[in-house]
Amino acid sequence: MIDKLIDRIGQLEAPIVVGLDPTPEVVPEKLYSDAAKTFGETPEAAAFALLKFNREIIDAVAGFVPAVKPNIAFYERYGLDGLRAYIMTIEYAMGRGLMVIGDVKRGDIGSTAAAYAGHIEPAALFGRKFEIWNEDAVTLNPYLGGDSITPFLDAIKDRDKGVFVLVRTSNPGSADIQELPVASEGKTLPLYEHVASLVAAWGAGEGLMGQSGYSKIGAVVGATHPEDGARLRELMPQTFFLVPGYGAQGAGAADIKRLFDAKGGGAIVNSSRGVIGAWKADGKSAGHIGKSARAAVQHMRDEIGSVI
Amino acid sequence: MIDKLIDRIGQLEAPIVVGLDPTPEVVPEKLYSDAAKTFGETPEAAAFALLKFNREIIDAVAGFVPAVKPNIAFYERYGLDGLRAYIMTIEYAMGRGLMVIGDVKRGDIGSTAAAYAGHIEPAALFGRKFEIWNEDAVTLNPYLGGDSITPFLDAIKDRDKGVFVLVRTSNPGSADIQELPVASEGKTLPLYEHVASLVAAWGAGEGLMGQSGYSKIGAVVGATHPEDGARLRELMPQTFFLVPGYGAQGAGAADIKRLFDAKGGGAIVNSSRGVIGAWKADGKSAGHIGKSARAAVQHMRDEIGSVI
Repeated sequence: MIDKLIDRIGQLEAPIVVGLDPTPEVVPEKLYSDAAKTFGETPEAAAFALLKFNREIIDAVAGFVPAVKPNIAFYERYGLDGLRAYIMTIEYAMGRGLMVIGDVKRGDIGSTAAAYAGHIEPAALFGRKFEIWNEDAVTLNPYLGGDSITPFLDAIKDRDKGVFVLVRTSNPGSADIQELPVASEGKTLPLYEHVASLVAAWGAGEGLMGQSGYSKIGAVVGATHPEDGARLRELMPQTFFLVPGYGAQGAGAADIKRLFDAKGGGAIVNSSRGVIGAWKADGKSAGHIGKSARAAVQHMRDEIGSVI
Repeated sequence: MIDKLIDRIGQLEAPIVVGLDPTPEVVPEKLYSDAAKTFGETPEAAAFALLKFNREIIDAVAGFVPAVKPNIAFYERYGLDGLRAYIMTIEYAMGRGLMVIGDVKRGDIGSTAAAYAGHIEPAALFGRKFEIWNEDAVTLNPYLGGDSITPFLDAIKDRDKGVFVLVRTSNPGSADIQELPVASEGKTLPLYEHVASLVAAWGAGEGLMGQSGYSKIGAVVGATHPEDGARLRELMPQTFFLVPGYGAQGAGAADIKRLFDAKGGGAIVNSSRGVIGAWKADGKSAGHIGKSARAAVQHMRDEIGSVI
């Protein structure tokens, strides 16, 4: 997965992933009301509106970016209907040649984590294998430690899958726990640096390193803390970074420069609202969703290209 | 939610929650093969087997314990079919008078956490409210900090709902991050003690304290670290504890004593495999699932009763 992602980024010259986080703020009212004509005023109609919105975005950005990143929370909120839209979004994106990073942020004790690994490995039932979720990669929360990650390693070792472990998130609250000063060998380091070292060690395990020199275990490193970039790159030299926080959350191109490696590789930058809400920011009607999204992606590619 | 839970625990004299974590290790083969006769050898059949298994457990323990705790991972692994079984398990348990703690361990940045709060508040769509998941409470992962918790507070403030934030989990890997030594005012404390203080502070917010003196924001505190119990009780005097790790994970009644308050309240102990897998441990056939589960719960109640 990681080698394929790096290849695609190179071909498209776009280290960009589009966050498919369809909130009522960016999905036009008309999509909901149109869907309600068929499905009634129900969660099923809302889910259909999300799917239709996502298809427009996907059609517009396919061929320009290598991957999309739906955050499952925005689908899970509408129950089974919403999650069906999540799965159909994944299928549709893959059909258009996009890779899919499922932003699920799961994490649990070992035996339970093995069940969550069903996101990226088939379920074994009745002596057969069933592909259920089928994301190319998912995000994971490290708070429960190594045994919450291990079951995913078995799922990615000999297969074309990957994970990204949260190290340093982009939100203001990331300070509450991730920045706590941890005492280590006479020095004091922020917690996220320790987590970075753990992620680097996990990623160096047997069968996990890609031909590209990057591990199948990546890290989530927010763009909103530019001062930490160089240090995290140094602590995780073989870890590919998934970088949220660009655009709507406040970070610009200069802030992400140090998250890339010396050759301008090693990271992919996410934008959600900045792309999928571009039609609104442009002051356009719902007919411009795709056009504005594509323009936003191209603008972002130029911006990032100018600093790496 | 918290007052109601405490009332029920008192009525039943059972600070016990049964973990509905139906794995292929505890669900009898016959339930899968019977379901396959109706649904084919499909994930739908597997999901039906889980639901049928859960109903037997629920029928056996209703009236003996106040609550059940399905871990969503064991349903999510089978996709939409599995999650339908999760929702139907919740409905069935509530119909039998049980409270339901959804063990979902979600956590994300503020705007996304608001979507996950859909687990315990209705979705607002088309000017109406839709109950989607409807757990009484859910578990949350604190790694992303305060803004990952805040949206849930709005969901529980004026409503009969609650959350339990992971502080100290019961698994071996909990040492990796939760035990890191954090430097604070010249002292060094394990990270989980800092998280405990955060959870206590979050729980003291306006509109969150129950009549019982316990907050609607509880904490997950594993039973497998008995040496920490007294300290965590002291740091979180008004925080109700959800205690995993009893039984199959190795902790016994003596280990949990200090997690309770001076009156023997303030905590509820989870057992999953110890109850739902009791029929196997007893060397019985699948016909004894309910009987063994009930006996396990009664035995656990006596054990816990002897130390608090």
